Amino acid sequence: MNRRPPPVRGFDTAEFETRTVIAQGMMDRFALSAMLLSTEAEVRYYSGFHTPFWQSPTRPWFLLIPCQGKPIAIIPGIGAACMAATWIEEVRTWPAPQPDDDGVTLLADTLNEVAGADGKIGIPMGHETHVRMPVADLDRLRALVGVDRFVDATSIVRAQRMVKSEAEIEKIAHVCAIASDSFEALPSFVQIGDTERQAFAKMRIDLLQRGADDVPYLVGGSGPGGIASIIEQPTNRVLSSGEVMMLDTGAVFDGYFCDFDRNFALGYAPDEIRRAYDVVYAATEAGIAAAIPGARSADLFQAMADVLSAKGASDGDIGRLGHGLGMQLTEWPSLTNFDTTVLEVGMVVTLEPCMGFGDGKTMVHEENVVIRENGAELLTRRAPAELPVIH
Amino acid sequence: MNRRPPPVRGFDTAEFETRTVIAQGMMDRFALSAMLLSTEAEVRYYSGFHTPFWQSPTRPWFLLIPCQGKPIAIIPGIGAACMAATWIEEVRTWPAPQPDDDGVTLLADTLNEVAGADGKIGIPMGHETHVRMPVADLDRLRALVGVDRFVDATSIVRAQRMVKSEAEIEKIAHVCAIASDSFEALPSFVQIGDTERQAFAKMRIDLLQRGADDVPYLVGGSGPGGIASIIEQPTNRVLSSGEVMMLDTGAVFDGYFCDFDRNFALGYAPDEIRRAYDVVYAATEAGIAAAIPGARSADLFQAMADVLSAKGASDGDIGRLGHGLGMQLTEWPSLTNFDTTVLEVGMVVTLEPCMGFGDGKTMVHEENVVIRENGAELLTRRAPAELPVIH
Repeated sequence: MNRRPPPVRGFDTAEFETRTVIAQGMMDRFALSAMLLSTEAEVRYYSGFHTPFWQSPTRPWFLLIPCQGKPIAIIPGIGAACMAATWIEEVRTWPAPQPDDDGVTLLADTLNEVAGADGKIGIPMGHETHVRMPVADLDRLRALVGVDRFVDATSIVRAQRMVKSEAEIEKIAHVCAIASDSFEALPSFVQIGDTERQAFAKMRIDLLQRGADDVPYLVGGSGPGGIASIIEQPTNRVLSSGEVMMLDTGAVFDGYFCDFDRNFALGYAPDEIRRAYDVVYAATEAGIAAAIPGARSADLFQAMADVLSAKGASDGDIGRLGHGLGMQLTEWPSLTNFDTTVLEVGMVVTLEPCMGFGDGKTMVHEENVVIRENGAELLTRRAPAELPVIH
Repeated sequence: MNRRPPPVRGFDTAEFETRTVIAQGMMDRFALSAMLLSTEAEVRYYSGFHTPFWQSPTRPWFLLIPCQGKPIAIIPGIGAACMAATWIEEVRTWPAPQPDDDGVTLLADTLNEVAGADGKIGIPMGHETHVRMPVADLDRLRALVGVDRFVDATSIVRAQRMVKSEAEIEKIAHVCAIASDSFEALPSFVQIGDTERQAFAKMRIDLLQRGADDVPYLVGGSGPGGIASIIEQPTNRVLSSGEVMMLDTGAVFDGYFCDFDRNFALGYAPDEIRRAYDVVYAATEAGIAAAIPGARSADLFQAMADVLSAKGASDGDIGRLGHGLGMQLTEWPSLTNFDTTVLEVGMVVTLEPCMGFGDGKTMVHEENVVIRENGAELLTRRAPAELPVIH
């Protein structure tokens, strides 16, 4: 049971200063005069601006990192007070929504002012990114400022956000501990005869009662012989003896996610299910052992894939065996055979070996770890070595 | 107390057929050979594909609407089983993540096959939209297929999604009833002496216990003389007598939102707060009376703004006095002085008159209504005419 007090909310101003200075150092190496950010995680990472108001797709929000000094916010007026409460000093607003010019000329003017008439402007344009503004407005902005001035800045935010600070790790560890407690308690509040929907709702409420802020992600399923899809929502199907149930949760504390699953046998554990569980458990062990600084993502993938194939597991078709974790449910890097990212101290990753078995069934096992100097430190409480049973 | 059974989950295939045929009729008028969609709400609207897996930014997902026949899904393999369970028949997959070509050539080939060598392809590119894929990949797709072949299709999805079916309205009404019950019960479970964070956590849990699936949006605050920002998260400040507290909730049932707030006086209601409450209450009454088919969004705005200015309220600086509501917390139209959208039977909108008062304080009142032939039907239970007090 997690009895530690929750970590302090937010971050010291020093942390935002450090993040900004590190970004500016990389911008300098890429000869960027400014970096433009538009998504929730990007804006929050450098500003501390933290609100679920991003749920509303109506208004774009921008943060501009100059080559020196504090970031500049260019945002709708409705967010001015909330942004003013962060470490950001310069907040430029327009009265959004204003579809004819929803911040575009204000942003273009600010870009030209900050980056000069011909300075390069970085925007994350690569894998796992998107630009959160209407494409017509993005095209207009690029035409106004000069299409060729915009270059891809994915490598900057990727390199920086992959390595977590101790304050970030504390938040992830805290929500992992909450979810570990909840999974451990689950057999006491979920029964055979519940519907999947009831079982999942109980876990969602339990997570909140234990101190999670929110549970944006909770998927899984149940079925005889295993489950077929690992990204589905619960249904009205009734949990019955001899089946297996899987729940995969992304709960949040102070804007940081956990992401791991647990499997449960209902009533008893059929042999085929137990064998599959043993394989993914063993593959996870291999992943934990291989998660050391200096190893590549692909090495970590291979360590788990080797166990899976040695035990005759077929491909689970999820495309990778883990990923980065932090402000988003999934972040860079990907644990695949082609990802050459070198693991560094402070990276947080999921290890989630997955195997196909039986009649189109899939078994996934998952833990969250932080890379330390001596190797992986578990943030989740290690799943039981034997498949737990709900009676 | 809401005692109706929850609406049936999902939609009949007939509803997806109708949505697709209506889209294809508009595509025909705009001479589009296909329409390409990439965001959660767009893909779900035409396919029924419903999973929180969109929380993961790693993989893009696409739905293509041809000029006739069923939509075609072009998605990562991890979603194949989930998509196959919808009414969609043709599901093309690639093994994402695959950063070098994350669906781009598969999508380009499918576009050329479906739209022919020179057919126009609609993408929502306008207000309140974005394209959910890396910009570098979007640029590459446009270059591969032909930049000039892509045209803005915002008006199609906007016109269509603004008018809700009865099945959609039922889901919104259900979650509005759940949140109405929770707000009514709130004085029984929140006390003076709670922190904001405790009060908000209690409400989130209460909403889930009453049958909400999730509460992606819950913001507000408290303070002496009122609150200053209406999009903030709760803090550790302790609720004290003589203050006002506001909670604004976007709870979800089966993928449809409510979006409304309630204000509470703590201990007693100071005169200035009561007067502000009376003004926004009266403005909401004017909005309800004006929400009739044939009126424009701007008329609805004006009806509320007239009451606010007649009572001497200053601008609350949120840019509009309401908006559409459905699969997203905020949707088209905007209740502003420039939005000329004509209200139609079946549209669901929020009415949220907002006023500035006192020392930089803001008071917002909010109801959700559906436009019926005879005028507005409340989906939320009307807030009390007098500011409720928590003791």
